[in-house]
Amino acid sequence: MKVSSIGEFALIERIRAQVPVAGDLLLVGIGDDGAAIQPASGCVTLAATDMLVEGVHFDLRWHDLANLGRKSLSVNVSDILVMGGLPRYALLSLALSPAVSVEALDDFIKGFKEVCAEYGIVLAGGDTSSSPHDLMISVALMGEAEPSSIVRRSGASPGDTVFVTGTLGNSSAGLNLLQSGNWSPDDSDHLYLIERHLNPRPRRDAVRIVVEEALATSMIDISDGLSSELHHVARASGVRIRVQEGSLPSSPALHRHTELTGALLSDYVLHGGEEYEVIFTASPGKAERVRQLISQGRLDATEIGLVYSGIGVVLEQQDGRKVALEPRGFEHFIA
Amino acid sequence: MKVSSIGEFALIERIRAQVPVAGDLLLVGIGDDGAAIQPASGCVTLAATDMLVEGVHFDLRWHDLANLGRKSLSVNVSDILVMGGLPRYALLSLALSPAVSVEALDDFIKGFKEVCAEYGIVLAGGDTSSSPHDLMISVALMGEAEPSSIVRRSGASPGDTVFVTGTLGNSSAGLNLLQSGNWSPDDSDHLYLIERHLNPRPRRDAVRIVVEEALATSMIDISDGLSSELHHVARASGVRIRVQEGSLPSSPALHRHTELTGALLSDYVLHGGEEYEVIFTASPGKAERVRQLISQGRLDATEIGLVYSGIGVVLEQQDGRKVALEPRGFEHFIA
Repeated sequence: MKVSSIGEFALIERIRAQVPVAGDLLLVGIGDDGAAIQPASGCVTLAATDMLVEGVHFDLRWHDLANLGRKSLSVNVSDILVMGGLPRYALLSLALSPAVSVEALDDFIKGFKEVCAEYGIVLAGGDTSSSPHDLMISVALMGEAEPSSIVRRSGASPGDTVFVTGTLGNSSAGLNLLQSGNWSPDDSDHLYLIERHLNPRPRRDAVRIVVEEALATSMIDISDGLSSELHHVARASGVRIRVQEGSLPSSPALHRHTELTGALLSDYVLHGGEEYEVIFTASPGKAERVRQLISQGRLDATEIGLVYSGIGVVLEQQDGRKVALEPRGFEHFIA
Repeated sequence: MKVSSIGEFALIERIRAQVPVAGDLLLVGIGDDGAAIQPASGCVTLAATDMLVEGVHFDLRWHDLANLGRKSLSVNVSDILVMGGLPRYALLSLALSPAVSVEALDDFIKGFKEVCAEYGIVLAGGDTSSSPHDLMISVALMGEAEPSSIVRRSGASPGDTVFVTGTLGNSSAGLNLLQSGNWSPDDSDHLYLIERHLNPRPRRDAVRIVVEEALATSMIDISDGLSSELHHVARASGVRIRVQEGSLPSSPALHRHTELTGALLSDYVLHGGEEYEVIFTASPGKAERVRQLISQGRLDATEIGLVYSGIGVVLEQQDGRKVALEPRGFEHFIA
């Protein structure tokens, strides 16, 4: 069924009927000119926004709408988490191309709702429009944090240790598989890598421990690739970061996949985007606690480097050579 | 110069260098994963979002980028104002099509900045992307209000009087002129109507008086057209609204234009969208004060009708006949 057959107001009602739209501190929600929110006592308001554009961030040949519903909210959740906060209220803007049916929209809502439910997020408002060519999804997400919990990109100091959660490069390897068409639904490595691309999951588990124990001097999520994000932290903090290539964590699936295909593992690990794994730095006094949590299996993270005075990012290669690590992650508008 | 020649990060720096990005209560702004805002003491946080999509909301043949910079923010400002609040922090998401040059983007920023300056709005964050076909602009705007100042759509009661600011129908008449191509730069009526379409101005003047004197039981801005918005208020408030056709305010320019062209004045006035004029209702106790402010020239508004118990919206025509007023304002997805 075409969206045009039900109309804009019915569409909004359809979303409203399926997604959480009420909360104790939400004084005014969907259905007015704007939302009104009572700030949580003693908390600072956080806000992040990320959009997904068809043909740039996704391809409807392999992203189904439920994936996009989850992903459009998850990438914003990740931003709020790594600021040290909890996500609370979303604004959802949809520019729907003629190709999007009512059924596809229901799939989108289903995925969006799953992430709402997982984090207790309320849809507080939004906007809907038609779109001549491409589907575009823009989400603004508000959250809250105690002022002392906020972690910035700019807090890294010389002597801090650099950690990263999970394993790197899976999402971009999954994307390459999808783009090449050269993958099999019977290959569990393929499925793992593709799932990591289609359905990235914010690292709430790891981030909450880091925030609750105030372990991080800086924190950032990997949307553009490890190399780019390390440069963001180094620049914002006014420091030099050195990481050991040999310590960078990668998944068994990515290992096997790159061995079979002859692709360079380090390209994926160093520059692969849309990971939503988290980089954080810890002061010497806190790094030991981080290592302890890691060794106890309570924190899924790996020590990858150190912070120095200076500028830039250095990679210590497996052969001991130190080279400048250029930011080669995804950047829009670069041909 | 193409945006691709400067890259995403240089683009963000370009925006950051030109627009207000710092405020006393903005603890973290552009350049981190998200913004962190200290809520104003005793205030509720307001949030609205509106997007502009090329080919739907604007046509680059007649909208220049400075117009769009202003309009993309102004339409959100209008939403925050009619909620009874003041706009404070904007998140700007831009999906830039290949046709948008760096110079055009600078024009956009110039227009956006003008509205920031006018209202003391700070750009707190955003997102940038390329776009395969269409330029898309999505703005989320946060504001603040004392809880007692919030005005909803749902507060109208039987016995209230209905008022509207300014004059109606100008914007849609201006759009029709642009679309037909049948206008002259020497015709001051044409220029007036076109300007009302290209550069709508939120009614801060009128809204602030209404809010400060707590005159309104409900308030809404006219984005979709008077008929649609009256239905929104009637439905949200659970009331019946009757308006007098003869009392609906229209501009001399629109009068002359419709007389010359034979177009129906009432079509523009009743159903023309993108006005950003404001409808509000006032209780019997406050309506007299509103009339007084109007007669003193301190409030640019007109009394247009009354609220009754019941449902729906009724138009009392000039000949005295009462007819149901259908919501015929702009709705997306309706073929």
